[in-house]
Amino acid sequence: MTLDEDRWVHWLEGQIKPSPSDVPIGIGDDMAEVSHQGASSVFFATDTLVEHTHFDLATASLEQVGYKAMAVNLSDCAAMATLPLAAVVAVALPIGFTESQLKDVYAGILRASRTYRCPVVGGDTTRSRSAAPLVLNVSMLSRCGESRAITRARAQVDDVVCVTGSLGGSLVAKHLCFRPRLQEALSLAEGDRITAMMDISDGLSTDLARLCRRSKVGALIDARRIPISDQARTREDPLRSALHEGEDFELLFTLPPGDYLSLEKRWNHTTPITQIGTITESSGIAIRLSADQVTPLAAEGYDHFKQDRSPQ
Amino acid sequence: MTLDEDRWVHWLEGQIKPSPSDVPIGIGDDMAEVSHQGASSVFFATDTLVEHTHFDLATASLEQVGYKAMAVNLSDCAAMATLPLAAVVAVALPIGFTESQLKDVYAGILRASRTYRCPVVGGDTTRSRSAAPLVLNVSMLSRCGESRAITRARAQVDDVVCVTGSLGGSLVAKHLCFRPRLQEALSLAEGDRITAMMDISDGLSTDLARLCRRSKVGALIDARRIPISDQARTREDPLRSALHEGEDFELLFTLPPGDYLSLEKRWNHTTPITQIGTITESSGIAIRLSADQVTPLAAEGYDHFKQDRSPQ
Repeated sequence: MTLDEDRWVHWLEGQIKPSPSDVPIGIGDDMAEVSHQGASSVFFATDTLVEHTHFDLATASLEQVGYKAMAVNLSDCAAMATLPLAAVVAVALPIGFTESQLKDVYAGILRASRTYRCPVVGGDTTRSRSAAPLVLNVSMLSRCGESRAITRARAQVDDVVCVTGSLGGSLVAKHLCFRPRLQEALSLAEGDRITAMMDISDGLSTDLARLCRRSKVGALIDARRIPISDQARTREDPLRSALHEGEDFELLFTLPPGDYLSLEKRWNHTTPITQIGTITESSGIAIRLSADQVTPLAAEGYDHFKQDRSPQ
Repeated sequence: MTLDEDRWVHWLEGQIKPSPSDVPIGIGDDMAEVSHQGASSVFFATDTLVEHTHFDLATASLEQVGYKAMAVNLSDCAAMATLPLAAVVAVALPIGFTESQLKDVYAGILRASRTYRCPVVGGDTTRSRSAAPLVLNVSMLSRCGESRAITRARAQVDDVVCVTGSLGGSLVAKHLCFRPRLQEALSLAEGDRITAMMDISDGLSTDLARLCRRSKVGALIDARRIPISDQARTREDPLRSALHEGEDFELLFTLPPGDYLSLEKRWNHTTPITQIGTITESSGIAIRLSADQVTPLAAEGYDHFKQDRSPQ
């Protein structure tokens, strides 16, 4: 049996059992929560971009790549409804990479740093000695805002399933310039009504299955309610793109059905929110394609252990 | 003019000006200090290991490589006299890397995690799609112990310059299995007498110059006092190996001359400490080769922007 990402995370969780008082939230959520000196917590995550896997320099500028490296981590901060505190950046340079090229990468890193008020406080720059892709790693710290952090683990049966923005087609361009949903996440967290949240990085089908597995529930979503992006509509199969393509970096969240209307009323962001389904008792994810057709939804998003996606 | 690492860090510092209340210690030390919610601080650093640059799988096992990735960050925690809190690990896998190989890497990561009580709380595993080296990145959080954190910036003229352990020849084997000097650092920090500290990763000549530049002082070291390792003694030029070779991961520290004797008296670690020189007013680093021969010491340690070292 080949390894997949979710089995790997499950294996790792079995190997690592930190004390819940030191690490209230460990491996398996968008960020870990680290408590120290009995006082406040910080949240901690890391993300790597590898050339040819997450970007291609034929279609992305170095500045965009630097921005994306920060933005994917900022999206993790949003996923927990936390506020960025600081980032450290590690860059592994291919042979022949110049100072001027490195400054272009940093122009994007620093643009994201300024825009989202997340200071870059440290770094490590290394050079490869063999044929190698450009590799950028960003690790980020964040903290709670006014409300508690939101994990993937507390979705309840009958909760509604919602997303921000629109899905699919991100690999056309959005994956290089998306706006992490930090402000939207803080608004969602107000009043402590959201039961579970994560960002959609590997595709709705894959990430909704992850959220449901953490919460020990299932979900039924309605194909006719999925907000399909304009870019996805240029694809041969727009719904497939919206369900599986990934790199949307939108928020996926759940809340009690009685709270959705009041959320919609007070929602004052230009980014839309859309109710796409319901949390169910069953252990799987299903999709309603029409009034009388419901079918299981396989997780066909991106998996690094299976490597089946190309950036464009 | 080609870029070197120190000029690059200087350039970065000029680009990034976080508020000193949020980031009391920024880029340019072994770890950054990040303050949050007006309360306690955490310390934050990142380090990357790239195959063929920092290790070679012809001479290092995957388990050793995993251990080293954690240990270089733990050495940063020691360099500031801080205690590890948590690590996140990002691995970029070459094509064809198997689940079993990844578990070997993690065996070393988890050995270091257990030994130095630093839980791994998150990770990111990505696969390269092109010919690529194995790249491991670890980012780490730490906190102060009983004493304040020690930076590179407060060495005073007439302070004595000291090191732990012995130097040189690390690339023979030690760089894969060194013991980060966490306990030694906490002992050194007791009583707040140490004025500056860092770990020696790029070679004594390079790292002492960095410490002196941060503290705006110079140093005179005595070649006859340098603790040369047994491994360095197998080299053609043992002193050169001890001064420049790097990857020693020993502590380099300074303290007032009147405090050295009492430190030596209370020192109860098996790792020796050795006084190797004195902080001077001049802006450079000099080395005494004999009673009547003093010569400037060039920083000839490792620089990733110049790429002049091979692991063995």
